[in-house]
Amino acid sequence: MGDSDRVPVGIVGASGYGGVQLVRLLQDHPKLDLAYMGGDSSAGKPFSDLYPHLANRTDLMIEAIDLNVIGDRCQAVFLSLPNGLACDMAPSLLEKGCKVLDLSADYRFSNLETYEAWYGKRRTDQAIAETAVYGLPELYRDRIATAQLVGCPGCHCTASLLALSPLLKQGLIIPESAVIDSKTGTSGGGRKAAVNMLLAEADQSVGAYNVARHRHTPEIEQICSDLAGHEVLVQFTPHLIPMVRGILSTVYATLRDPGLVRDDLLTIYQAFYRSSPWVKILPSGIYPQTKWATGTNLCYIGIEVDPRTDRVIVMSAIDNLMKGQASQAIQCLNIMMGWDETLGLPQLGFYP
Amino acid sequence: MGDSDRVPVGIVGASGYGGVQLVRLLQDHPKLDLAYMGGDSSAGKPFSDLYPHLANRTDLMIEAIDLNVIGDRCQAVFLSLPNGLACDMAPSLLEKGCKVLDLSADYRFSNLETYEAWYGKRRTDQAIAETAVYGLPELYRDRIATAQLVGCPGCHCTASLLALSPLLKQGLIIPESAVIDSKTGTSGGGRKAAVNMLLAEADQSVGAYNVARHRHTPEIEQICSDLAGHEVLVQFTPHLIPMVRGILSTVYATLRDPGLVRDDLLTIYQAFYRSSPWVKILPSGIYPQTKWATGTNLCYIGIEVDPRTDRVIVMSAIDNLMKGQASQAIQCLNIMMGWDETLGLPQLGFYP
Amino acid sequence: MGDSDRVPVGIVGASGYGGVQLVRLLQDHPKLDLAYMGGDSSAGKPFSDLYPHLANRTDLMIEAIDLNVIGDRCQAVFLSLPNGLACDMAPSLLEKGCKVLDLSADYRFSNLETYEAWYGKRRTDQAIAETAVYGLPELYRDRIATAQLVGCPGCHCTASLLALSPLLKQGLIIPESAVIDSKTGTSGGGRKAAVNMLLAEADQSVGAYNVARHRHTPEIEQICSDLAGHEVLVQFTPHLIPMVRGILSTVYATLRDPGLVRDDLLTIYQAFYRSSPWVKILPSGIYPQTKWATGTNLCYIGIEVDPRTDRVIVMSAIDNLMKGQASQAIQCLNIMMGWDETLGLPQLGFYP
Amino acid sequence: MGDSDRVPVGIVGASGYGGVQLVRLLQDHPKLDLAYMGGDSSAGKPFSDLYPHLANRTDLMIEAIDLNVIGDRCQAVFLSLPNGLACDMAPSLLEKGCKVLDLSADYRFSNLETYEAWYGKRRTDQAIAETAVYGLPELYRDRIATAQLVGCPGCHCTASLLALSPLLKQGLIIPESAVIDSKTGTSGGGRKAAVNMLLAEADQSVGAYNVARHRHTPEIEQICSDLAGHEVLVQFTPHLIPMVRGILSTVYATLRDPGLVRDDLLTIYQAFYRSSPWVKILPSGIYPQTKWATGTNLCYIGIEVDPRTDRVIVMSAIDNLMKGQASQAIQCLNIMMGWDETLGLPQLGFYP
Repeated sequence: MGDSDRVPVGIVGASGYGGVQLVRLLQDHPKLDLAYMGGDSSAGKPFSDLYPHLANRTDLMIEAIDLNVIGDRCQAVFLSLPNGLACDMAPSLLEKGCKVLDLSADYRFSNLETYEAWYGKRRTDQAIAETAVYGLPELYRDRIATAQLVGCPGCHCTASLLALSPLLKQGLIIPESAVIDSKTGTSGGGRKAAVNMLLAEADQSVGAYNVARHRHTPEIEQICSDLAGHEVLVQFTPHLIPMVRGILSTVYATLRDPGLVRDDLLTIYQAFYRSSPWVKILPSGIYPQTKWATGTNLCYIGIEVDPRTDRVIVMSAIDNLMKGQASQAIQCLNIMMGWDETLGLPQLGFYP
Repeated sequence: MGDSDRVPVGIVGASGYGGVQLVRLLQDHPKLDLAYMGGDSSAGKPFSDLYPHLANRTDLMIEAIDLNVIGDRCQAVFLSLPNGLACDMAPSLLEKGCKVLDLSADYRFSNLETYEAWYGKRRTDQAIAETAVYGLPELYRDRIATAQLVGCPGCHCTASLLALSPLLKQGLIIPESAVIDSKTGTSGGGRKAAVNMLLAEADQSVGAYNVARHRHTPEIEQICSDLAGHEVLVQFTPHLIPMVRGILSTVYATLRDPGLVRDDLLTIYQAFYRSSPWVKILPSGIYPQTKWATGTNLCYIGIEVDPRTDRVIVMSAIDNLMKGQASQAIQCLNIMMGWDETLGLPQLGFYP
Repeated sequence: MGDSDRVPVGIVGASGYGGVQLVRLLQDHPKLDLAYMGGDSSAGKPFSDLYPHLANRTDLMIEAIDLNVIGDRCQAVFLSLPNGLACDMAPSLLEKGCKVLDLSADYRFSNLETYEAWYGKRRTDQAIAETAVYGLPELYRDRIATAQLVGCPGCHCTASLLALSPLLKQGLIIPESAVIDSKTGTSGGGRKAAVNMLLAEADQSVGAYNVARHRHTPEIEQICSDLAGHEVLVQFTPHLIPMVRGILSTVYATLRDPGLVRDDLLTIYQAFYRSSPWVKILPSGIYPQTKWATGTNLCYIGIEVDPRTDRVIVMSAIDNLMKGQASQAIQCLNIMMGWDETLGLPQLGFYP
Repeated sequence: MGDSDRVPVGIVGASGYGGVQLVRLLQDHPKLDLAYMGGDSSAGKPFSDLYPHLANRTDLMIEAIDLNVIGDRCQAVFLSLPNGLACDMAPSLLEKGCKVLDLSADYRFSNLETYEAWYGKRRTDQAIAETAVYGLPELYRDRIATAQLVGCPGCHCTASLLALSPLLKQGLIIPESAVIDSKTGTSGGGRKAAVNMLLAEADQSVGAYNVARHRHTPEIEQICSDLAGHEVLVQFTPHLIPMVRGILSTVYATLRDPGLVRDDLLTIYQAFYRSSPWVKILPSGIYPQTKWATGTNLCYIGIEVDPRTDRVIVMSAIDNLMKGQASQAIQCLNIMMGWDETLGLPQLGFYP
């Protein structure tokens, strides 16, 4: 660590899959420098105790979490912690002038009542929470540019919202008709021992989880409501798929105007995402594969209209650990720093 | 082959994954005897040329397809061929007194206009097609019992229809609200070389295919319409999942009566499938994993109601090559022969 | 449970993958009846609490482990426990007349000093250990037939020994030249939460483990020494492969007589295993795939000779949970009961 | 394409997995510019016809193969073609002053008799073949630096030779005792439809292929002989593993001096690879996982000594498409251009 021409940044909670992506991405970033890695149980150890393949990077040490040290040393910090911890750290970091990018759910909700209802933790920091910007650049680029505190979106939310936003913003669908069927690889479950995530259990199997009660539901609804201009409820169901990385969200909704055809929608989506270099609208008849996005910050979107049912079907594919987590946070920081939002982020999929 | 106390049956088109399942299942069946295996390109060769792991079964030879021979030797025959071939063979087999179970789409449609529109082949055998019974025993057990000709359901259709039927039959949902998001392993694509089915391509990836135009759509709609008593259109989208076997169909529909709760529906489903030993309704809060059904003729169904949206979400899991294909055909033949429909079929999942 | 014409058997330690295979196999066995399932932490619960897909078998209850109850109720019992526990239970079970099949390492060693050195537990039951027979029927069929206590082989040992035995027994190789490179699916690690066995970690990766110190080494060596008639050391290295089931052992050894060709060895192997229905010697030029053995009690063996190096390469493939564990134990019990050793065991691979 | 400060390079045969890696790597390389992509059947089409996820790179067009055009436009060219084609193209490219990096087997052999014997093609270009340097920089860095023509190593050869070289060079082992058991993901088979590479076939299975006759054998032996100073034969056996990327080679050999311990060998390996930034010797007791190398040009090496058998076991892990193919070719070109050999190549594994 330590290149004095670059902006020093820190990671708190580097031991998880999000953390290890951030480390890899920061190494290749031309203007950011990893100046601090903090952890709790692994404080004082080299990062390679957790990830032996990084044994050649002996400079990567995990330090104890000391907010003063972080504030002194870093201009920006990524908080990659379990839900409910970031909201105890962010205030002092902000006070010290640090930009904060929180990868947990703590700063995704403008209304903390929703957070409390779905996450079960009391919060008294409504004032700070209201200063947080939802870190989906394709929707909130301008607000992110001037933010000090960014609440980075959930992985399913990123894929779902990029698929739904043009439809809601333009009023093209009946909002309450929206059904989101989302499929994720198992890395979304994090790096913790759990029987149902064993290869012997999760391989060769598919199933839904947290049906009708997954916490990404209110998060998607909050942004959909913002786009639609009125309260929107959606049906969101996540599924676990036997692969490591990737999310495919298949979104179904009824068109208000049954006369719309696929090519109309392709045009609308292309216009909506014209200034968004990380969203790729696929040509007519091509549907996204999650593998295409693997290792990149890209979101691939395919669109189909069923004239028999007057429904639009939108499919969006991302890498859950990249656009769904780590690289999107760096995309936000690029914007906060006034840089090109593509700076230092991989653009060509890791294929096959 | 050859146990004279048993009923002799044949397989035409034994080289595919459906065929090799039938061979395995017939070996363990107490009352059926595999008396004939027919193929085209592989006629005259031992079956183990195609499947070396069957080299110890030197009696399994693939013969040329000769309808007279089949009719003389077999009381029943499974046709496991590409679409459009069975309808040229079934008539003479039926004439010779053979029971015919067709695993292709040729005899799934009572109205051949629908078949012609979706499968692109002219048909002139409407009279025979009308004698065919749709081979989903949980819905058409009585008609199968007296049928000579059974059109076995498509794999996605089996999973989708077992999930939807109680809702439609009881008029509990708004039929046109039904969205079916189905996920299948790659064995559904059969045993033919194709770049997109290579492990290097299909592993670590998920995508939809044939969106808004998959041929299982009209098949599902035909049965749904029969159950509802009026024409029903559904939204059906299949997805390819990186695993070998299994289908999970997630079905979304809006309840007519928003007062219904999950336990009501569990009761309704249990009643609907009371006489169906192969359908298992899971307890409250348990959702099916395809792995649970692997290797069996079972269909596991989980049910959830979302009181926020008044939707029911039904998930059904099957083994696509078993209940979705080979073992369901044997279940049908058990019924046609007047036997217990569980005879000779595996009941405990091949786990893990 | 409970068919009075059958021989009642019990399982102690039914919660693991070995246990759930035994349950499935016993259900289909024509002469055995599962009369008891015992567990520690899960005593008093239905088996379906551990395996929800067995919820339809409400009769499968896990009872507390009471050796008197087991002895009264069962004629034979499978002990499927962590190493070091069976040797505390077997004596009283044997005393009550129970046949005991131990799936752990406790009764695999005739010389307990070796056990103590590699397993780190003091043992004082050398007398009983000496009555135990090593449960590899292809080598010790006659002794198993009259045994009361069988120590079932380790999974890697089964594959390795079936590959090596004809060579050693006939003195065809230089014993100390033997190198065994073994590859196993992750189910061999059992059903316990462990980070390195997560799908996200173990998928898309291969690595060796316990190199030069795996406990299956002395077990293989003990049997090799018995066959060779003098002490033999082998090089054994296990590898973890990203799949659920299966073991492939690739065995390399230098031929004493460089004039031997592949066909000579095929003949020798066929003769050696002539009375062993579960070992299949593949034709010239065909090498075994683990998938061919999946779900069966079979071991497939392929043989190659490299005339350039005077080495023989033998490859053996088994299902680690079947021939490597559960079904082999039942094969042993079949022999102990005087039945055909193929009774009730699956013979056709679960393919694809 | 087209940055005039950079060195223009071309790819002939860009449609395969090697080609698509080169495209991705060249995009991120600070001093190379992809100025030409040539193909046969796909000439005139955009690259995204083959790889839809590259649809956003509309500048990537596949051109007809015209050696004059390539020679005029490129300073260096990567030939990524089936065996036997490069030797017809390289001469004219070299004549036009192009540096040539051949990824096929055509220029790996200094003695064309060996090539002819194993690859079955007559060759008359012994003179040119003798000017080719074997593109394994860790062994032939100096010769590569001045080469015009480089024959890039086979994937298994790279992993095997990096594991074996220090032992042979220092005379630490009995060369003829070397056994190489290599495991590869299926991407090594390339992007062509083949039944045995289907996910439904290759997933959940492991098997050896081309036992005692794989073409990488003479290639490994040629380099081993060069290192040892006399002719060396090795036992090499490749296995197909159910994963996309990665090779693990497990190498067994008998030590000449039984007194050597693991730490001695670690020291020897560290010294041998001191100037090789892409080879990482793992600490005592740590064995490489192929996942650690995924996406990088790294080779991880773990070493164990078995004092019971006097054997050394060396395990090496690479990404077969990177260090085993595309990124190693760029490493060679970096050296040929006089640049740092790490230039533009990924160093942190794509984990998980």
